[in-house]
Amino acid sequence: MTTPTDSSLPSDRPAPSLASRPLGVAAIGYAFMGKAHSNAWRNVASFFDVPAFEQKVLVGRDATQVAEAAAKYGWAESATDWREVIERDDIHIIDICAPGWMHAEIAIAALDAGKHVLVEKPLANTLGEAELMVAAGAAARKRGVQSMIGFNYRRVPALALARELIAEGRLGTVRHVRAAYLQDWLSDAESPMTWRLRKETAGSGALGDIASHAIDQVLYLLGDDVTEVSGRLHTFVDRRPRSADPESALEDVTVDDAAWATLTLASGAIASVEVSRVATGQKNSLKLEIYGDKGTILFDLENLNELGFLDATAPVREQGFRRILVNEPEHPYLEAWWPQGHIIGWEHTFTHQIRDFLSAIASGEAPSPSFEEGLKVQHILAAIEESAAAKSSLIQLSTHATNTATATTIEGA
Amino acid sequence: MTTPTDSSLPSDRPAPSLASRPLGVAAIGYAFMGKAHSNAWRNVASFFDVPAFEQKVLVGRDATQVAEAAAKYGWAESATDWREVIERDDIHIIDICAPGWMHAEIAIAALDAGKHVLVEKPLANTLGEAELMVAAGAAARKRGVQSMIGFNYRRVPALALARELIAEGRLGTVRHVRAAYLQDWLSDAESPMTWRLRKETAGSGALGDIASHAIDQVLYLLGDDVTEVSGRLHTFVDRRPRSADPESALEDVTVDDAAWATLTLASGAIASVEVSRVATGQKNSLKLEIYGDKGTILFDLENLNELGFLDATAPVREQGFRRILVNEPEHPYLEAWWPQGHIIGWEHTFTHQIRDFLSAIASGEAPSPSFEEGLKVQHILAAIEESAAAKSSLIQLSTHATNTATATTIEGA
Amino acid sequence: MTTPTDSSLPSDRPAPSLASRPLGVAAIGYAFMGKAHSNAWRNVASFFDVPAFEQKVLVGRDATQVAEAAAKYGWAESATDWREVIERDDIHIIDICAPGWMHAEIAIAALDAGKHVLVEKPLANTLGEAELMVAAGAAARKRGVQSMIGFNYRRVPALALARELIAEGRLGTVRHVRAAYLQDWLSDAESPMTWRLRKETAGSGALGDIASHAIDQVLYLLGDDVTEVSGRLHTFVDRRPRSADPESALEDVTVDDAAWATLTLASGAIASVEVSRVATGQKNSLKLEIYGDKGTILFDLENLNELGFLDATAPVREQGFRRILVNEPEHPYLEAWWPQGHIIGWEHTFTHQIRDFLSAIASGEAPSPSFEEGLKVQHILAAIEESAAAKSSLIQLSTHATNTATATTIEGA
Amino acid sequence: MTTPTDSSLPSDRPAPSLASRPLGVAAIGYAFMGKAHSNAWRNVASFFDVPAFEQKVLVGRDATQVAEAAAKYGWAESATDWREVIERDDIHIIDICAPGWMHAEIAIAALDAGKHVLVEKPLANTLGEAELMVAAGAAARKRGVQSMIGFNYRRVPALALARELIAEGRLGTVRHVRAAYLQDWLSDAESPMTWRLRKETAGSGALGDIASHAIDQVLYLLGDDVTEVSGRLHTFVDRRPRSADPESALEDVTVDDAAWATLTLASGAIASVEVSRVATGQKNSLKLEIYGDKGTILFDLENLNELGFLDATAPVREQGFRRILVNEPEHPYLEAWWPQGHIIGWEHTFTHQIRDFLSAIASGEAPSPSFEEGLKVQHILAAIEESAAAKSSLIQLSTHATNTATATTIEGA
Repeated sequence: MTTPTDSSLPSDRPAPSLASRPLGVAAIGYAFMGKAHSNAWRNVASFFDVPAFEQKVLVGRDATQVAEAAAKYGWAESATDWREVIERDDIHIIDICAPGWMHAEIAIAALDAGKHVLVEKPLANTLGEAELMVAAGAAARKRGVQSMIGFNYRRVPALALARELIAEGRLGTVRHVRAAYLQDWLSDAESPMTWRLRKETAGSGALGDIASHAIDQVLYLLGDDVTEVSGRLHTFVDRRPRSADPESALEDVTVDDAAWATLTLASGAIASVEVSRVATGQKNSLKLEIYGDKGTILFDLENLNELGFLDATAPVREQGFRRILVNEPEHPYLEAWWPQGHIIGWEHTFTHQIRDFLSAIASGEAPSPSFEEGLKVQHILAAIEESAAAKSSLIQLSTHATNTATATTIEGA
Repeated sequence: MTTPTDSSLPSDRPAPSLASRPLGVAAIGYAFMGKAHSNAWRNVASFFDVPAFEQKVLVGRDATQVAEAAAKYGWAESATDWREVIERDDIHIIDICAPGWMHAEIAIAALDAGKHVLVEKPLANTLGEAELMVAAGAAARKRGVQSMIGFNYRRVPALALARELIAEGRLGTVRHVRAAYLQDWLSDAESPMTWRLRKETAGSGALGDIASHAIDQVLYLLGDDVTEVSGRLHTFVDRRPRSADPESALEDVTVDDAAWATLTLASGAIASVEVSRVATGQKNSLKLEIYGDKGTILFDLENLNELGFLDATAPVREQGFRRILVNEPEHPYLEAWWPQGHIIGWEHTFTHQIRDFLSAIASGEAPSPSFEEGLKVQHILAAIEESAAAKSSLIQLSTHATNTATATTIEGA
Repeated sequence: MTTPTDSSLPSDRPAPSLASRPLGVAAIGYAFMGKAHSNAWRNVASFFDVPAFEQKVLVGRDATQVAEAAAKYGWAESATDWREVIERDDIHIIDICAPGWMHAEIAIAALDAGKHVLVEKPLANTLGEAELMVAAGAAARKRGVQSMIGFNYRRVPALALARELIAEGRLGTVRHVRAAYLQDWLSDAESPMTWRLRKETAGSGALGDIASHAIDQVLYLLGDDVTEVSGRLHTFVDRRPRSADPESALEDVTVDDAAWATLTLASGAIASVEVSRVATGQKNSLKLEIYGDKGTILFDLENLNELGFLDATAPVREQGFRRILVNEPEHPYLEAWWPQGHIIGWEHTFTHQIRDFLSAIASGEAPSPSFEEGLKVQHILAAIEESAAAKSSLIQLSTHATNTATATTIEGA
Repeated sequence: MTTPTDSSLPSDRPAPSLASRPLGVAAIGYAFMGKAHSNAWRNVASFFDVPAFEQKVLVGRDATQVAEAAAKYGWAESATDWREVIERDDIHIIDICAPGWMHAEIAIAALDAGKHVLVEKPLANTLGEAELMVAAGAAARKRGVQSMIGFNYRRVPALALARELIAEGRLGTVRHVRAAYLQDWLSDAESPMTWRLRKETAGSGALGDIASHAIDQVLYLLGDDVTEVSGRLHTFVDRRPRSADPESALEDVTVDDAAWATLTLASGAIASVEVSRVATGQKNSLKLEIYGDKGTILFDLENLNELGFLDATAPVREQGFRRILVNEPEHPYLEAWWPQGHIIGWEHTFTHQIRDFLSAIASGEAPSPSFEEGLKVQHILAAIEESAAAKSSLIQLSTHATNTATATTIEGA
């Protein structure tokens, strides 16, 4: 791969004119995330008042399969070369759902070409790539070209409500947070290897995949920063069949399938994080517990329409965790949907994300979470790995950030 | 049996002098309820500040067994003849845990003998008996001799709190109530006959046994009266083995194992009641849902330390059912127990009942629920039976009460 | 209105040729149900392998508004005259989301015109209309023209799984069912009148609107029939402001806002049904409890991705209600969606409905639930009203059905 | 204080003869734990078949108060000098509910005097004292004198059932455990100092008080050992008013109010532990989650009558966490209590503990948990403190144990 900064010319390109509407959208990738993002693009305008756009192109490597996916998911065309698509004048937005190791190259090229970019998390597989993306995003922003990272759970209405309540001081001083993301799709030791279980393709395991979400939530909900971490990684099933063939040889699993950390926050709060892909019976359980001196918030992604809230300023006699069914017109994003009590599904975290991304583009304001916010999470993940390698010793984040910030080339490029 | 009113002399006997403390207590019956009441007597003074008393005598039919039970449950002596015990000068309180068909005779005799009386629910197996008991209780009350019926669930702290909240207007106007009492101990069709399944010994089935509790709660929590009922009874397993012997012949079950009713309340509210002994998986689930225009209360006896409460006057954005763990010193009865969050068990509904009974005796005030309140429930149960026999047609309670109030002799006596 | 049977010619028209794909779809109505159905049409082909179709026309009364809605919800065109649309050769399917009083006329005309028809519940506002629809549906079916009523909750995956488990005998003999549908959008007595609160436009209140769902579930899950009912209706808030203007005069509410019934089933089981629109705090809670001698099932629509199941054949020591998160590829409809634990929303009950409707059209098999099934529910609702008017007396369904089946004209036409 | 080993003579004393029944019991301490233990002694024989015993003496420092407590809690006498009581021939059992810093001296003296000893957790405030107690307990055991530490939560029926299920292999290989003990009684920063918040009297804070329970459960449930720990301690509220007087000066809190740890287990499993006294809204929530490759167990002390269990060997279609209401005669300890579904309270963990202690004495077998088991927990707590002091670095337990095992005198004596 050529280093994206080779091409200096495109960086002069301004943002697509808002007069040139409808905005043309291209998405890259049609697997799990491509399907989820496509669903959001297909539906967002049916519920929300967003700038006009068109689902122009779906990009993928296999011409036949991507054509089928494009037809199925509502895209007008399909293509196999993302570079060509990026250059098209009728494309104004690039939505990157490709694997993490491709993020940097595509995102930087797209930003340089003056396209607004939405990229799935994690920002990149390496800190170096992530930092280059941040630089490209910052440069583009000055030209009115927007970029955003897809921490979609920020758009769970219940969590958006949680953030509001915390920002309003309803929890008082937050003291500690318990964050866990528990899945069990690797519980079966006979389940074979995939690219997600190899360090060279996945970067890390549960840490990068799901601890990233948990940590982003801590930052998002509290509006806080991490200053210090202690971490631990473990691989309970360290060898797996190379393929679904029961006769296949065993291969080493080179990423973690569980991780633990404590995070010191700038505010003085402490967060614990625990993630696992072998938590038998837990399917997609991102659990958050936020304890303040005036109240507490509870959340579980398996019941994402609900928020637990305890108001400790109420008389003791009537205090209790309440289950708020976050399905009222008064709740974030909900006015667009169905009458109260008619719950929405996981996929609409992406619908809301697209809505906010489009609104930001229309208003000319930088969308959030930015690449910088994505990088911040990457730094924390890296520090956890570093701590794990150092017998769980506490690692200072500021030091860590300084060290790695000197990286200027894409690692492994 | 002789009619209790034969002996007019004893009715002159005043209440036991409060100077003659400690109060001597005798309990009649040592089966399930005898065990539960004994437990309450044994423990009440360790937690509550109550008048001094002594667990004097446990009365039962089988001399050996009652002696064993007395030793085990903390009674100083045992006896087999309740009439003798009632006449003892050192006995001031009679706690009747004998089967329902014995209640009237014992209670009336005890009251006439000037003893305070606590009687397990149901008040009696027949309306006629119940009315005679009410008359005896009322007469005794004038002499300072107290009487009480054991609707122990009034002393669940969570339900006592519920009543307080309702009385304070926190639910606004109560519109409807859903009451259910679900058990499953008769789910197994091979489970053999017992006295509880024969009309002549049990009076009725789920209706008298558990609908009585559900209905008493409706009256207690709302402070309301029933004016009209529609009812239905059903026996799903209508024949059972005569004994545990698998070869034993089948016998007809002559009581209901499930019942349904709607109750019109004097306030205009409507309550539905559903009870079952064949609700597989429900062990002892008295569920109450009380819907007012300003709030709602939920309760389940299987989690008796919790009360669900929704305050509909709060902003919609933060409304939700809260789970109040009713274990704070601020909650009814709880100051006597353990620190917050250390839950108490089912049996202490009886401990609280004894405490309130003893407090009433000490203060000279009539304890609640009175025999009159027990009779009220009996009238409602009778009206449900009447409605069930009349194809569920609505039955007016006032009419009904008038009709039956003319009964002046103990039915079947 | 002209009686639909006036036009006898159209009834000769056969089903649209399957060669003439893609199927052209027109939907009538763009309010709540129109929005929900449109969403299903817009998304079904992205997840399921269904016959090709096109969202051709959205029909509504207001030309401007329906044009906007069509653009928003994915329809190629809009129109204001449903009769014209029905006659179009490129339209093969009519999806009726108009108010209940319009169902019969449109459905019968569409069927006569050889169009497949999906009609929202309730089938019609009157039994007479419903019966004419059944006749038209039956006649059309012989010509290969399909019809279906939209009891969408049959397509909740958890309830489809419940039906499978019951059909497999996992509950053994079902004894009783507790069905409730509780909402609270009318709790506020100041909330003004709408067409839903007037008998002439809505037919009935909570009874027709939500008891219909609850009763359909009883029939669907058990595969059973109702033979007898006792019912009760009540209007807690019987006068409401005529409009949102606080000065507006009060108007009588002429439909029920709560209803209660017991249903005798052909199998001998008994179901209780309770519905309310003033159950403060309950937003959209269709609760089902099904008790068999070998197991029990629990469900709540507010947590529609979950099914409660107790297997009473397991050793007592380890029995308990389990929460099945119905999100596995092994579960009905779920293979099409997201990985396990990524919950789906309420709206996809309609997506599944469209999928099944299209599959039935493709296979030439009659889809379920049929108009006959819709009529069956209408008969039960009518019997509940009849019983309510007769002081809750039990009403025999067979008798009832015979009486009303003689109706041959559209009431009120 | 004199070192207990000064008096070598008493160690010749054998266990109290079993012929000298009933066993005389003395309890030392009448605060929270004294009340709870007294309750257990007062009730155990009413439910369980245990050796005969008598509640002889309650010992405390304040003559008046201890006399009152003795009367209230069912003790025949009271006393103020525990040394005299230990020497009494009619006393065979010493139940130590005094503060932790008194444990060693009393326990060693009592064991030397040939008395069976039950001591509340923690075993002692220092490792050195704990080791001396272990030595004394081991020596006494050879003479038939029994000793036991009061980790009462081993006697929660649900947790006893959990242990059985795990031992039977129902979870397969346990991979990871999440243990948390969350309380909130220190959430209020204005709540004043107590002896529990000073290191010199309490030893440690949440760590010793509640992490000890959580860690003991990990060891108990899994039958496993800890080999390595990483830990962290924090005091969120580090200064508190010296007294309830709002004018009082602030004093430093010298113990932790929250703690975090990861524990490596000998089996290869990893456990996370998190405890807090400022987890607002959590009253007494000991939460345990145990993930194996064949199943999972969940528990929460606030619902101590329930056990969550997921059997991953069941067909995926019907897997789910089940809520076992641990109230059946088939369940540990439950046959003694009430019919199914009639839940028991927190205090009966102590009743069961006394039952098992008495049974062990009667059978001559050493009761469990032994002092050695208590010491094992102390070592883990000490290693967590050591790790916390070393920036959370992993500490090897074996090394640690060796280092501290050299302690031979009571620290601070």
